[in-house]
Amino acid sequence: MSAHAGGGAEQVIRGIEGLLFEWARAIDEDRVEDAAALLTEDGEYKVASRFNADRGLPLALIHCRSAAQLRDRITSMRVANIYERHFYRHLISGVQVISSAADGHEVRSSYAVMRIMEHDGSMSIFSTGQYRDLVVWRDGAARFRRRHVIFDSRSIDTCLVIPI
Amino acid sequence: MSAHAGGGAEQVIRGIEGLLFEWARAIDEDRVEDAAALLTEDGEYKVASRFNADRGLPLALIHCRSAAQLRDRITSMRVANIYERHFYRHLISGVQVISSAADGHEVRSSYAVMRIMEHDGSMSIFSTGQYRDLVVWRDGAARFRRRHVIFDSRSIDTCLVIPI
Amino acid sequence: MSAHAGGGAEQVIRGIEGLLFEWARAIDEDRVEDAAALLTEDGEYKVASRFNADRGLPLALIHCRSAAQLRDRITSMRVANIYERHFYRHLISGVQVISSAADGHEVRSSYAVMRIMEHDGSMSIFSTGQYRDLVVWRDGAARFRRRHVIFDSRSIDTCLVIPI
Repeated sequence: MSAHAGGGAEQVIRGIEGLLFEWARAIDEDRVEDAAALLTEDGEYKVASRFNADRGLPLALIHCRSAAQLRDRITSMRVANIYERHFYRHLISGVQVISSAADGHEVRSSYAVMRIMEHDGSMSIFSTGQYRDLVVWRDGAARFRRRHVIFDSRSIDTCLVIPI
Repeated sequence: MSAHAGGGAEQVIRGIEGLLFEWARAIDEDRVEDAAALLTEDGEYKVASRFNADRGLPLALIHCRSAAQLRDRITSMRVANIYERHFYRHLISGVQVISSAADGHEVRSSYAVMRIMEHDGSMSIFSTGQYRDLVVWRDGAARFRRRHVIFDSRSIDTCLVIPI
Repeated sequence: MSAHAGGGAEQVIRGIEGLLFEWARAIDEDRVEDAAALLTEDGEYKVASRFNADRGLPLALIHCRSAAQLRDRITSMRVANIYERHFYRHLISGVQVISSAADGHEVRSSYAVMRIMEHDGSMSIFSTGQYRDLVVWRDGAARFRRRHVIFDSRSIDTCLVIPI
């Protein structure tokens, strides 16, 4: 494992952007399993409110401590959960590498997820917030060692089914 | 014609981003004619629903098989169509070059178009979706050889007047 | 003062993007004072409607002719203004350097600001529009010599408290 891309600074930031964009596109194209593959096997994926994160409170809506746990959740979404069918559209903005060290790059970005209901086509702002990522390089590719989704609102409409 | 910018990889991606951003800004600044000039003369511009695109169904809301057809549509918008005056604000996210070949670069990006009504200033999410573009270089500049707009929702509020 | 970053074209555009993204993140993380520090001391920060800007009308919602004036406004926000507590989430899109000269780089970008109310978590599109910036380099860092926020809608919900 190395935190480095083996290239210049520009290749590092492009690799990080590509990782973030691929996560979003995989989910929006209903290839959620492909998003899970962007987490390292020992990676952490957590979705928690800004309210809790600001106060250091541990409760999260989703907390996967490995890629296997995230795959498990996706399987549950595919075969067990009952919900009104819908899609997401991610908007990612302001990708910033705020620090880099031997164990990876700390990256921040803002997101808005629009939700589109299949049955009537209604669109709404489902969630906004910040991604707080630790990005590492594995076998020459950027991967999430940690992906924390900190959502701005204390309320979620109905249910969080699809990962953000 | 060449698919290449004549520069390094970074110049290619910057050229592609610049093309996508200029299309969006031209429309948002009410210079829609300038957006049409970003399509090659033999270019295709199509706006179709995700529902239809997923099923290979051909119906589209707009389907211009040349830049001349798109200019024609814009003329119609300027002189013939009757509609409540409004503006768009495009948000473009996650620009990815997913493949490159002799005939151009396949590019994907997500968009959200906010619509702002002039008379009362009300704002809403008008459309979200994905751009599926084939980008080529003509006379040293990036141009759309194909721009497919695949919108997520099966419903459009009232009317699609301004191109997305 | 120099308009140049002292590096290549790519370093200039990355420096400009970093400036725009840091402004947005500082506000969204409730570090508005840090955003004000991105304006040069003789910088101008103005928030005006597209309606007025298009007609050359001078009225603006906020018009600070120096960084000190902006800091003053932020102090007022912190200690004097009474308002329902809320957060912003900025989405920045389509950053374009449209010209460069000895006195700086003219930069355009689109924004949407989502507003999240703390008490009930409700989310809405608060403002969309365009940033029209003049970016200069001071002591090796990109700074706003002029930041004009031109918002699309002629109406603002309740009150503009936090800078956009």
